[in-house]
Amino acid sequence: MKLRIPFETVRATADEALLRIGLPEEKASLCAQIHTESSADGVESHGLNRIPRFAVYVRNGWVDPEADPVLTGARGAVENYDGRLGVGITNAIFCADRAVELARQHGIGCAALHNTTHWMRGGTYAWRMAEADMVGLSWINAESCMPMWGSDEKSVGNNPFCIAIPREKGPIVVDMAMSLYAYGKLGVYRLAGEQLPYPGGFDREGRLTTDPGAIEETMRILPAGYWKGSSLAIALDLAAAMISNGRSGIEQDAATMGSCGGCSQIFIAIDPYLFGDREELQAMLDHRVAAADSAHPIDPDRPVRCPGENTLLRRKESMERGVAVDEQIWNQILDLATGRMDVVDIASF
Amino acid sequence: MKLRIPFETVRATADEALLRIGLPEEKASLCAQIHTESSADGVESHGLNRIPRFAVYVRNGWVDPEADPVLTGARGAVENYDGRLGVGITNAIFCADRAVELARQHGIGCAALHNTTHWMRGGTYAWRMAEADMVGLSWINAESCMPMWGSDEKSVGNNPFCIAIPREKGPIVVDMAMSLYAYGKLGVYRLAGEQLPYPGGFDREGRLTTDPGAIEETMRILPAGYWKGSSLAIALDLAAAMISNGRSGIEQDAATMGSCGGCSQIFIAIDPYLFGDREELQAMLDHRVAAADSAHPIDPDRPVRCPGENTLLRRKESMERGVAVDEQIWNQILDLATGRMDVVDIASF
Repeated sequence: MKLRIPFETVRATADEALLRIGLPEEKASLCAQIHTESSADGVESHGLNRIPRFAVYVRNGWVDPEADPVLTGARGAVENYDGRLGVGITNAIFCADRAVELARQHGIGCAALHNTTHWMRGGTYAWRMAEADMVGLSWINAESCMPMWGSDEKSVGNNPFCIAIPREKGPIVVDMAMSLYAYGKLGVYRLAGEQLPYPGGFDREGRLTTDPGAIEETMRILPAGYWKGSSLAIALDLAAAMISNGRSGIEQDAATMGSCGGCSQIFIAIDPYLFGDREELQAMLDHRVAAADSAHPIDPDRPVRCPGENTLLRRKESMERGVAVDEQIWNQILDLATGRMDVVDIASF
Repeated sequence: MKLRIPFETVRATADEALLRIGLPEEKASLCAQIHTESSADGVESHGLNRIPRFAVYVRNGWVDPEADPVLTGARGAVENYDGRLGVGITNAIFCADRAVELARQHGIGCAALHNTTHWMRGGTYAWRMAEADMVGLSWINAESCMPMWGSDEKSVGNNPFCIAIPREKGPIVVDMAMSLYAYGKLGVYRLAGEQLPYPGGFDREGRLTTDPGAIEETMRILPAGYWKGSSLAIALDLAAAMISNGRSGIEQDAATMGSCGGCSQIFIAIDPYLFGDREELQAMLDHRVAAADSAHPIDPDRPVRCPGENTLLRRKESMERGVAVDEQIWNQILDLATGRMDVVDIASF
């Protein structure tokens, strides 16, 4: 069941839970804010739903709640950080902010982060760079969870790629995993007894299927765009590991520290006002977005929207009606926050 | 019918044809090399096949064969160029090389090009950056040729995104249009009387179909990964126009100067050896690629390959057996090269 709980209540409760899990005050506060914002934006799967799992990761020693990123190299507009298996969200925010700062100095900036942990909702960091007036690009390499195209076994991460454009009327943000559907999404459809809208993977007989349970069983999730998604996934994996001097996806497989344990991440910010007038560029964006949005819709009740636009509508709704939270997840977070449940009692995820 | 013609014969003939079309010597020579390499790599659709169409573009005044790119702004690690509707290939090569040079100075470099023309095979420039020891990223915005997700009319470009990783045993290169199949590919299947391997667009009744002719009729090509491909396409369009201070896709629609006439392009190079040891990083790449390639294949006769690996095999075959060229296209190029046909006599494409 879904509850609607005021943003500030959710945030404060998440903050308490994260403190009990062992995060220092500043980190708990920032993570509580981000987890709550993700759920408020409609990305529950990578928002509040992740807090119990995060607690298990801390308990298992896969995330060090005290560690801060350390600069391990700097040259020109690029910096390299060791995330020291610290908290994925705070490490990634730190590096997104460094990329922005480098772009303010050099026009473009890159922060390359190795040895970090799961950043939760990937779009958070591109969105943050856009709010700092930058075009933001970011990506991550993850452990193997998707077959390479032509294979029937998981052999590459679904490595999300994110890009955000700083439009003043609302950023345009893509947060795109390289699988068509996340595993979390398959579970949502299965629990609701529904089929996927489009085939999302292969069943035991090797046939494309819309049956979410059959795909969970084979772990043969479909790359977005078939061979295209798997090609981009392996390239992003290699690029992240190479630039950050960090682990590739299979080195994460070997490390077995949970999802994205020890992963590599890239953050690139580009100042879009170097060569053009701000007002003219904003007018260009608005004109382009309006043209896309006015493309003739297949279903008159479902107008075309650019990525990020619906997120803002969901955010507004969450601020008015409360943040939608799964009841079971909410009870776990409450139990953690109040000390009714200790992290050692949480089942593994 | 396909002919196999020695690389050097093809290159020299293309060079003659391009000189007759009106390109200055240096530009003709470079373009002949690139068109021939693209066909030799198996990308005929954006290699030699484009020369007759390029001739028409020059004749129509959509491409100025004499124009060189002009620096219109520079700040730190970013430069902005006006392509002056010059030759797409030479403009893009110039900017890819500038990005590499900027990355040598600043660790990362970006050349943003506006008012340019079709770059033919997108992968050329990422591949070139990788051969210069850089991780290369590039993308372009094109005129509307694909529906935004949820629409039934063309409303966004298929805006290729390219990324290349400098592996010494052969770069890993993704050259990915945001539609699942290019229009050129649909034509190839239709002429061969074949169905597409996977649904590639919508027919007149709005059903997903594998019938290439039905999709050509509606122009409702399918974005790669459905909503994902269309989301990334609009974001890449906005980012290219904003950073380069250039035209968006719909401003190209309005300009009506052929495919990609007046478009915007971004080239980003990142030095991957800033923080890690070259030999160790190359060993990491080889290890990762070997793991992907050894993923259990669905069909034992079709082993998994990372993007770019098969390109090198095709290149080798072309050097040994000659470059595969469509007979009709080859005759057109010969006619242009020998002066038997003047550019004014070529039908439009």
